Amino acid sequence: MADAKFIYDSAERNADLYYATRFAAPDPFIYFEVRGKKYLVLSDLEIDRGKKIATVERVLSLASYAKLAEKKNRSFTIVDVLKEIFSEHGIKKLVVPQTMSFAMADALRKKGFRVEPGPVPFYEERLAKTPEERKLIERSQRVIFEAMRLARETLEKSRIKGDRLAYRGKTLTSEMMQQILRVFLLERNHFAPEIIVACGMHSIDPHDRGAGPLRPHKAIIVDIFPRSSATMYYGDATRTFCKGRAPDALKRMYATVKEGQELGISKLRAGVNGRLVHESIMRYFEKKGYVTGVKGGRRQGFFHSTGHSIALDLPEEPGRLGPRDFIVPMGYVTSVEPGLYYAAVGGVRIEDLVYVTKKGCEILSRYPKRLEVR
Amino acid sequence: MADAKFIYDSAERNADLYYATRFAAPDPFIYFEVRGKKYLVLSDLEIDRGKKIATVERVLSLASYAKLAEKKNRSFTIVDVLKEIFSEHGIKKLVVPQTMSFAMADALRKKGFRVEPGPVPFYEERLAKTPEERKLIERSQRVIFEAMRLARETLEKSRIKGDRLAYRGKTLTSEMMQQILRVFLLERNHFAPEIIVACGMHSIDPHDRGAGPLRPHKAIIVDIFPRSSATMYYGDATRTFCKGRAPDALKRMYATVKEGQELGISKLRAGVNGRLVHESIMRYFEKKGYVTGVKGGRRQGFFHSTGHSIALDLPEEPGRLGPRDFIVPMGYVTSVEPGLYYAAVGGVRIEDLVYVTKKGCEILSRYPKRLEVR
Repeated sequence: MADAKFIYDSAERNADLYYATRFAAPDPFIYFEVRGKKYLVLSDLEIDRGKKIATVERVLSLASYAKLAEKKNRSFTIVDVLKEIFSEHGIKKLVVPQTMSFAMADALRKKGFRVEPGPVPFYEERLAKTPEERKLIERSQRVIFEAMRLARETLEKSRIKGDRLAYRGKTLTSEMMQQILRVFLLERNHFAPEIIVACGMHSIDPHDRGAGPLRPHKAIIVDIFPRSSATMYYGDATRTFCKGRAPDALKRMYATVKEGQELGISKLRAGVNGRLVHESIMRYFEKKGYVTGVKGGRRQGFFHSTGHSIALDLPEEPGRLGPRDFIVPMGYVTSVEPGLYYAAVGGVRIEDLVYVTKKGCEILSRYPKRLEVR
Repeated sequence: MADAKFIYDSAERNADLYYATRFAAPDPFIYFEVRGKKYLVLSDLEIDRGKKIATVERVLSLASYAKLAEKKNRSFTIVDVLKEIFSEHGIKKLVVPQTMSFAMADALRKKGFRVEPGPVPFYEERLAKTPEERKLIERSQRVIFEAMRLARETLEKSRIKGDRLAYRGKTLTSEMMQQILRVFLLERNHFAPEIIVACGMHSIDPHDRGAGPLRPHKAIIVDIFPRSSATMYYGDATRTFCKGRAPDALKRMYATVKEGQELGISKLRAGVNGRLVHESIMRYFEKKGYVTGVKGGRRQGFFHSTGHSIALDLPEEPGRLGPRDFIVPMGYVTSVEPGLYYAAVGGVRIEDLVYVTKKGCEILSRYPKRLEVR
């Protein structure tokens, strides 16, 4: 009797499943690994494609196991089918992703299987990106920076009219800019269901997607994080713009965030504790007079993590460059995205992705950091 | 001590959560219902927006419960936080979605909670759509039919060149058509990560998204099923086209599928067994000479279900118009999408959505069913 790794999920939702098989299908499918061999169990609709492209040793037919299950019980469930498959392969203990549904875990246990949670990520080698993965993330990142250029150009082409921006005869809004960028990305096979284009009071809440007219002389945070529908890999980048002359307070804050980001990048390398990178930026901000705390019931300053991992998931767990200890592994890809948020000034965030090496880290594609758009 | 319904998930993934709260956020959040009252527990980043828009009785602060948990254990987890929340509300038994992660279920059980699976869907009232929901699905459906018109027009504007179609100086492919439709839908706030534009051998596999040049005189299945990013509701429709004169065998098959679909629609009403609707179409196809079975290791004929429910999920479980018993409830919205697939002829599928009433069913928006595009 052998232990098996087992996943039942859709590849789009479960990055480990896609990582292991390089196979995606619209419906959930069965995957297991036992005695060093990987297996897929696919329906008739998927089996031919699976045999062609999946990076597994064997592709089995779901229908044939379903037939076996049906012989024993006409109203059989997926768990009966799994029992047939696992019996045939001499499997009694299953190591599964912690996200597996508890209904399925309970049902498998009732059938006599041991079900135990695997690590996060399920394939720990995901933490260190292969050169191929690095390339795919960088490719997404390049597309994002093309979109960032388009955002800047759209602001350039807009004219200031009182407290609004006029673009092609209309008032330029967050929603319009999001749509312009979304379509541009889609035309390059990148899906961005959410894009942040947040101005004024919207910009001081890092989760606010932004809404309504974009304003001149105010911070406009543009945060773009699409997934490539060709490669399944994400990219993620943020720039902050200001149409027209920026107030001095905003300029100073921008320069501070930019320096904070550079400081963080300079400290990142394999083996370093991400918490120390995060704290060094925090301390730098404090030294410059940007204190983090609560004011009027609202958090202000630098109150999110410095960065998160990214690849087939966004964010990828575990580990952040944040307030908790986390030793950064070699080949890690993480965002470095400090920000400062104050009601009186607005929000500023600058984000790039880096690839962590022994000696330091490499920035994945580049785009200028300039606040003002004239 | 009271029982509580409890969901911890993201609203985009968990339709029940969105159904109950009408609130979406980028990260997972905590929801529970106890003694007839609904509660959300949100982070500082989301709490203001939650108070404004969520359809719940109370919005609680995640941060304040996290503080309580931290006092007892510096390296507290989300389960410690849940324990604080549930103790305060006198909750010992949790009814949760069957999709809840077993790692969380196990952890909650270790803390002394009873965890039991709820029904599917978690909110059973989801099966019967409200008039408002019906409207939202119909709105998505109208956008899809505008896209379908664009697909037809694109084929109209293409010229037949040998065994290819020339469109704006290029060979028209499945991928190009998918991209044209995807961008069109996105401009109308509908996301369609996947679109089927399948021709020739691709068209005989109902799950094949299609690839490569579209061919004249062959079946082209166009299946569009986007989600509205404004309302979160899906639409779903399929038409089959043929550029140029269609072969007689394809014409005959098209007419048969169309009649089969109409037959199915005519039999649908609240209280009917979906299996009988499905079997009546199957029998009609057989009577016309279209037999379902396996040929050359490949299934042919009509080998998928007639329809599935749709609203905030696609498909919505449970229940299909298919080979298993399922009593169709009042207010149910389902696709009716019979298809025939033969290697020698190609694939034909026609799909509309209907809203089930006591007396019959109403088609949600309409678009002509015409095979040939000249």
